Amino acid sequence: MRLGDLAEQIGCRLEGDGSQEIRRVRPLEFAGPDDLSFVTDAAALGRAAASRAGALILPEKAPAADRPCLRTPNPYLAFARALALLEPVPRPTPGIDSSAVVHPSARVDPSSSIGPLCVIGAQAEVGPDTVLDAQVYVGADCRVGRGCRVYPQVTVREGTCIGNGVIIHSGAVIGADGFGYAKDGARYVKIPQVGRVVIEDEVEIGANTTIDRATMGETRIGRGSKIDNLVQLAHNVRVGPDSVILAQVGVAGSTQIGARVTLAGQVGIVDHVLLGDDVIVGSQAGVTKDIPAGSVVLGSPAVPHREFKRQLAAAARLPEYAKALRAIEARLADLERRAAHPDADADAAVGTS
Amino acid sequence: MRLGDLAEQIGCRLEGDGSQEIRRVRPLEFAGPDDLSFVTDAAALGRAAASRAGALILPEKAPAADRPCLRTPNPYLAFARALALLEPVPRPTPGIDSSAVVHPSARVDPSSSIGPLCVIGAQAEVGPDTVLDAQVYVGADCRVGRGCRVYPQVTVREGTCIGNGVIIHSGAVIGADGFGYAKDGARYVKIPQVGRVVIEDEVEIGANTTIDRATMGETRIGRGSKIDNLVQLAHNVRVGPDSVILAQVGVAGSTQIGARVTLAGQVGIVDHVLLGDDVIVGSQAGVTKDIPAGSVVLGSPAVPHREFKRQLAAAARLPEYAKALRAIEARLADLERRAAHPDADADAAVGTS
Amino acid sequence: MRLGDLAEQIGCRLEGDGSQEIRRVRPLEFAGPDDLSFVTDAAALGRAAASRAGALILPEKAPAADRPCLRTPNPYLAFARALALLEPVPRPTPGIDSSAVVHPSARVDPSSSIGPLCVIGAQAEVGPDTVLDAQVYVGADCRVGRGCRVYPQVTVREGTCIGNGVIIHSGAVIGADGFGYAKDGARYVKIPQVGRVVIEDEVEIGANTTIDRATMGETRIGRGSKIDNLVQLAHNVRVGPDSVILAQVGVAGSTQIGARVTLAGQVGIVDHVLLGDDVIVGSQAGVTKDIPAGSVVLGSPAVPHREFKRQLAAAARLPEYAKALRAIEARLADLERRAAHPDADADAAVGTS
Repeated sequence: MRLGDLAEQIGCRLEGDGSQEIRRVRPLEFAGPDDLSFVTDAAALGRAAASRAGALILPEKAPAADRPCLRTPNPYLAFARALALLEPVPRPTPGIDSSAVVHPSARVDPSSSIGPLCVIGAQAEVGPDTVLDAQVYVGADCRVGRGCRVYPQVTVREGTCIGNGVIIHSGAVIGADGFGYAKDGARYVKIPQVGRVVIEDEVEIGANTTIDRATMGETRIGRGSKIDNLVQLAHNVRVGPDSVILAQVGVAGSTQIGARVTLAGQVGIVDHVLLGDDVIVGSQAGVTKDIPAGSVVLGSPAVPHREFKRQLAAAARLPEYAKALRAIEARLADLERRAAHPDADADAAVGTS
Repeated sequence: MRLGDLAEQIGCRLEGDGSQEIRRVRPLEFAGPDDLSFVTDAAALGRAAASRAGALILPEKAPAADRPCLRTPNPYLAFARALALLEPVPRPTPGIDSSAVVHPSARVDPSSSIGPLCVIGAQAEVGPDTVLDAQVYVGADCRVGRGCRVYPQVTVREGTCIGNGVIIHSGAVIGADGFGYAKDGARYVKIPQVGRVVIEDEVEIGANTTIDRATMGETRIGRGSKIDNLVQLAHNVRVGPDSVILAQVGVAGSTQIGARVTLAGQVGIVDHVLLGDDVIVGSQAGVTKDIPAGSVVLGSPAVPHREFKRQLAAAARLPEYAKALRAIEARLADLERRAAHPDADADAAVGTS
Repeated sequence: MRLGDLAEQIGCRLEGDGSQEIRRVRPLEFAGPDDLSFVTDAAALGRAAASRAGALILPEKAPAADRPCLRTPNPYLAFARALALLEPVPRPTPGIDSSAVVHPSARVDPSSSIGPLCVIGAQAEVGPDTVLDAQVYVGADCRVGRGCRVYPQVTVREGTCIGNGVIIHSGAVIGADGFGYAKDGARYVKIPQVGRVVIEDEVEIGANTTIDRATMGETRIGRGSKIDNLVQLAHNVRVGPDSVILAQVGVAGSTQIGARVTLAGQVGIVDHVLLGDDVIVGSQAGVTKDIPAGSVVLGSPAVPHREFKRQLAAAARLPEYAKALRAIEARLADLERRAAHPDADADAAVGTS
């Protein structure tokens, strides 16, 4: 692709020779003369100058470069778009593989592709331009929208509703029963989980992540939210739009997560709490109560960012405090002894301080 | 279903008109005139009165209601039973799907249902009234009991023994090799894992949970225990009956967990320890040693509940303690200075306190 | 197998009658007259003498036994080897199951075994003596080496390179997209993940573990490293040789882990850090920065082992320190009061100390 055409398609300003042919996108250290590379911060400018990259994506404010450039206020976004254009994800041809088991009442758009050994249940619907890779399970009464990609060995249980442009990675399980029991003496009696899961448009769900169906009603993941691998979202959880949930996070039942929230890796959140919009929870934190919008929390149990830092600093100095405490006690005892015997030699005390 | 019949079948006392037709069970806020709803605690009585529910499950002691009621000492249990009656899990028709690959020596009861693209190994046995959904793997020499439900894409490795009434959710892996190696210098040499897994009756196992086979002998999950999603139970672990293990818990090798134990989300337990009956471990706790029966532990490393609370309260006040320590040091230094110079003006000291 | 032959094959020194027939390897408490058992430390010698085992693996230095023995400096290794010889993992016959869907351009060595309902993509290669169990997915352009075992329902995404002697357990997902997005205002735009995963020789990967493909370049697991269940290794992570990663560990993007490193269960490591060779990270620890070679770290955030122990001990004594602080303040106030009124009765102070 010509650099000039690329500039136009990814919305960058061309600087230099637009006729240059670009084959791939590569990091600075691996880029060759046919490759586009990218600089996202000033620290990389030196490495950029030393690189063999044929062209560069550069921040608007960076100084002039010695080769053709694509200028943009958001180089990382331009990089993402260039990569998508130059190295598109391969797509199988449309149609249903002859080894797939598709229920006669299922409706699969002819522009979609159903891979080998998939199973599609009764009354399920698959929209246009969607790809189900091999060995995917889509249960009865599911709806998968337009332009989705479902990678091999995903399970989508009955009744799940998946929007448009959704990506689901291998091993993810959408719509398994929520974990709910009533007690009958010491025994647990299963509460049937008759709700469903709704995945809104442009959501991405990582490998081996589990999103449970609601007891009644819905578990819902908001538009554009991105969920990493091995995440657990329990029954009736709601995640707002544009949130990011990193690997191995666990969210217990009925908890509500706002818009643009970030949950870092291995975070745990108890059931029935509310995380406001734009909340950030640091990795391994354990959230035990509602968190107001805009807060940054850390620790287990989670506390506001500054409080955590203060506690952490104090904890690190604890052994030192303990030592100080013992020294104080000695000095105090000495003073008390002298106070009790005011006639003793005051000079001796000076030596102990 | 008529309310009177429902009352009889779920063991509640009918109050009011038993001829009312009930279609579904719904939470108070979503229930309509054909729906049964439920009140589990006094706090919900107001909402119940305001709801459109046609009938209510009520605690025995709750005041009289303005509509037909089912009275019971355990409303939550009645709710579970009503839901199971009114919205039963759909079951496929018995028989082996033509796309399943069943070894000729496997014995499948004709009342059971083997879904599309399942694989059943040599000498495996599937008991009556059991459902294997699509794409399930049951290895050689496995035994699956009566009335089980195995959801799509479960793997049950060779030699596993599964009791009656067991539910296994999608992506669970039962009987993978335990994690055991001998060292040969810096290298690790695999110890073959020749034991098996035994799942007792009425156990439920969550999506993408892994339960490893024993090195030798058994890994065993006790009757009626319930295991959530993404849990890891290592080789030779034993879980007693009626225990509950929440999502993302990890239990290391040979650890024994008693009866009626609760492990909250993301708990970790080291290998070769013993948790007594009725132990409760709080979420994200890390258990590093034996825990006596009946204890409640929290924290990482886990300590008794009260000790944890005390430590937590003290930790929260640490910055304050540090400040107090500095103030004390200043006051002490001042006293010491004056003790060394007893003739200086005593009145000055008053100002510092 | 005759004990003498066994001794030779596992490299032990025979002591006593080599003609004895050995059928199985069993722990001391379960071993019978046809079984070989093993003693790995002195503590077990008493139980060994009391056992019914027909023969024993013994440390070189252990006292003479009353039955035939295999002497070795490393009994645990001898045990592993004996188990591998006497109870070999069953292997299916070579060939491609008729229900597998193998792309015509894939190359499968005739000595390998491809199980029922596997899917093998275009241009993929499977080397000699490798077993893919049922329902495995191997994407286009993958390479699986010689002597590998891939258990049921593993997903290996396109372009992955797997060495020789690799074992992958059920539900593992190798080569799913890394978790990378550029921000476009509040929205996240996917960065295509065009790199791959390389698994070197003799690696073992646990059930439901996820190893993401690189954004560009490689995610790489070094020779002989062993990875337990439900582990998350993000894009561009590198793990050196002979490292051990226990269950539920999460390693964020681009982090590098040296040789012979041990990550205990549920450890989390942030992105872009470097763990030197021989590092040990304790369970549930959270690593937030580079760790020098040979360190042992614990806690979240992780600190050196000794510092952690000191902090922990101090934390346990915190309530006691708080009490001490209050006592000191009272004593100090008393001294100050007396210093301000030097004429008051000095004897009174003695009573408070």
